[in-house]
Amino acid sequence: MSKNIVVVYHSGYGHTRRVAEAVARGAQAALLPIDEHGNLPAAGWDAIAEARAVIFGSPTYLANVSWQFKRFIDASSAVWAKQGWKNKLAAGFTNSAGINGDKLMTLQTLVAMAQQHGMLWAGTGMMPSNVKASGREDLNYLASFTGLMTATPADAGVDEMHPGDLRTAEAFGARIANIVHTQLSAQEDTCLTC
Amino acid sequence: MSKNIVVVYHSGYGHTRRVAEAVARGAQAALLPIDEHGNLPAAGWDAIAEARAVIFGSPTYLANVSWQFKRFIDASSAVWAKQGWKNKLAAGFTNSAGINGDKLMTLQTLVAMAQQHGMLWAGTGMMPSNVKASGREDLNYLASFTGLMTATPADAGVDEMHPGDLRTAEAFGARIANIVHTQLSAQEDTCLTC
Amino acid sequence: MSKNIVVVYHSGYGHTRRVAEAVARGAQAALLPIDEHGNLPAAGWDAIAEARAVIFGSPTYLANVSWQFKRFIDASSAVWAKQGWKNKLAAGFTNSAGINGDKLMTLQTLVAMAQQHGMLWAGTGMMPSNVKASGREDLNYLASFTGLMTATPADAGVDEMHPGDLRTAEAFGARIANIVHTQLSAQEDTCLTC
Amino acid sequence: MSKNIVVVYHSGYGHTRRVAEAVARGAQAALLPIDEHGNLPAAGWDAIAEARAVIFGSPTYLANVSWQFKRFIDASSAVWAKQGWKNKLAAGFTNSAGINGDKLMTLQTLVAMAQQHGMLWAGTGMMPSNVKASGREDLNYLASFTGLMTATPADAGVDEMHPGDLRTAEAFGARIANIVHTQLSAQEDTCLTC
Repeated sequence: MSKNIVVVYHSGYGHTRRVAEAVARGAQAALLPIDEHGNLPAAGWDAIAEARAVIFGSPTYLANVSWQFKRFIDASSAVWAKQGWKNKLAAGFTNSAGINGDKLMTLQTLVAMAQQHGMLWAGTGMMPSNVKASGREDLNYLASFTGLMTATPADAGVDEMHPGDLRTAEAFGARIANIVHTQLSAQEDTCLTC
Repeated sequence: MSKNIVVVYHSGYGHTRRVAEAVARGAQAALLPIDEHGNLPAAGWDAIAEARAVIFGSPTYLANVSWQFKRFIDASSAVWAKQGWKNKLAAGFTNSAGINGDKLMTLQTLVAMAQQHGMLWAGTGMMPSNVKASGREDLNYLASFTGLMTATPADAGVDEMHPGDLRTAEAFGARIANIVHTQLSAQEDTCLTC
Repeated sequence: MSKNIVVVYHSGYGHTRRVAEAVARGAQAALLPIDEHGNLPAAGWDAIAEARAVIFGSPTYLANVSWQFKRFIDASSAVWAKQGWKNKLAAGFTNSAGINGDKLMTLQTLVAMAQQHGMLWAGTGMMPSNVKASGREDLNYLASFTGLMTATPADAGVDEMHPGDLRTAEAFGARIANIVHTQLSAQEDTCLTC
Repeated sequence: MSKNIVVVYHSGYGHTRRVAEAVARGAQAALLPIDEHGNLPAAGWDAIAEARAVIFGSPTYLANVSWQFKRFIDASSAVWAKQGWKNKLAAGFTNSAGINGDKLMTLQTLVAMAQQHGMLWAGTGMMPSNVKASGREDLNYLASFTGLMTATPADAGVDEMHPGDLRTAEAFGARIANIVHTQLSAQEDTCLTC
């Protein structure tokens, strides 16, 4: 009857970690970091197995998830073969330097992976801040829907990330928690043929 | 407290209609056809508003939904502005002549549109039939996850569609109904800021 | 031996037309507008047939090309069947209100359509302006690669578009012209089996 | 004045290697394998630098390139920063067990990566074999356009691949060579600002 939420992420330089922390704060979720070699400890796999919702996060490097995150995806093929994550809720986020920078491609990768796992998908559910008066400090100024996007200049340190992006990240986490608590049944169906 | 499911689709030559009928049979869903000009009658929009889940279907023409289906998407911008479909479940299917034929692109379009509407997304949740003994009559022989794919040869009539595809379509409809009945709460949340 | 370039576009409210004009200026290209019903006049189809490169442009509405632009794509199936555009160069651009707003999806649609036509594809070839000192007035601030992206606030008139976006559009047109003149042979191969 | 073509690929179990060999045969190209750790030897990077066209190949694992191939992509960021591959021709191929199996996603990843590098892209340029009389032995039976797709059942050995797929792979290689020899100038432009 768990309604646990976990955030599984890889961060190369600390920016994506900071986004992950904001998302986890909003979702009241546990953080499960993938290491620099692309490994997730066994306890992390166990925590995913117990969770109702899994939020995936990766930097966007050259138009897709980092190789470390992809290694995690490839390692999930053992779970895939048993459809162990079936009907869990999935969501995703990504950070990169450019305002666009093909971040949608990363989110599409996360969607497709989740669909192979038979998971449900939820996006930001946020209207964009897209009028003349909108600014970098507004919620969803990056105008993303399939998942959360944040952008951090290539020369910005971890402590120089846009506060608006981090607030959006926290709101995104809260959105996923809201879905888990108001839209979903307590337990995913474990019927593999359904 | 409705748990209604509707199938909104456009069909150019009748093949996609036949898939829609199989999906609707599996999901116990109402059929809402978009006409040749890309219009959906007002009663159709009302039925969507009442539904818990919406299954979208379009042929794939030159790598994406038909223009008639896109016209329906564009017309949904009025609902989008109010996020009227927020937290409803969405799913999708597509038919084209080639085995692949960029059908995934059509499904990606449906996912992205649904995410702009703040909807949840569910795919086939079916393992692929991908071993040497697999054949065209097996469930999910086309090996699609994000949504249902069917393929009908360019010179095949409506009565010459692959029975395996139609059985897969019916199973896909049943899968969506199963999610609605076992995974989702009765009513989507109408809180726009959640 | 033509090295003509044409810009085929649809514009709903005039913003995409202004981008098209800037691209055409940079590429020394002819402008071929698709009308509000999704039709391109016969002379437009003839001009495409004569061109060495075709730059496609559409607004992004709800995560993809406008239905009018899709109607043009669907109408191109007659050319597709004869592979009449084979080995021409293709490129693309899109405008929408949000900074991201799923514009990559529109570019992916244009790529996939062009690939079905057997065309070559060229993107922006521009490094992104993605450091702390970068601003809206810089080239490729939107950090797009597969094609040109511009963003115009939802409440901005045609005369209020970002000058940096329009300069980027002109540079993008010049980039495509440069490829045509320095990278490509004068005439596309018309061998259908090659 | 080189018109060299290289095939850069990763193969997990040998199937993608066999496709790579067929593509290389058709293109008269050198083979550059990425190893099981995701590394390409220095001589491989040099060969890419000298080539006019680069054909990228990877298996599709859980809806995208293998992590080893992604590691190669991530390693190319050093070249990216100097736009060292600008205006080279790029193309791609992928193999997986399912007939579809989200292979288009892998090709989209390769396109987006190539576009970040400022490369041109060419697809299969082959009409699909999509009529009732079509079979697994026909050219482009998988009906792919953006790049080459092959499908090998999950329980098929390297010597049990579909001959039609391998013939399609060889024809695809020949198609890329044809573009290099009839459509492209001998040398890519090295002007970074063009």
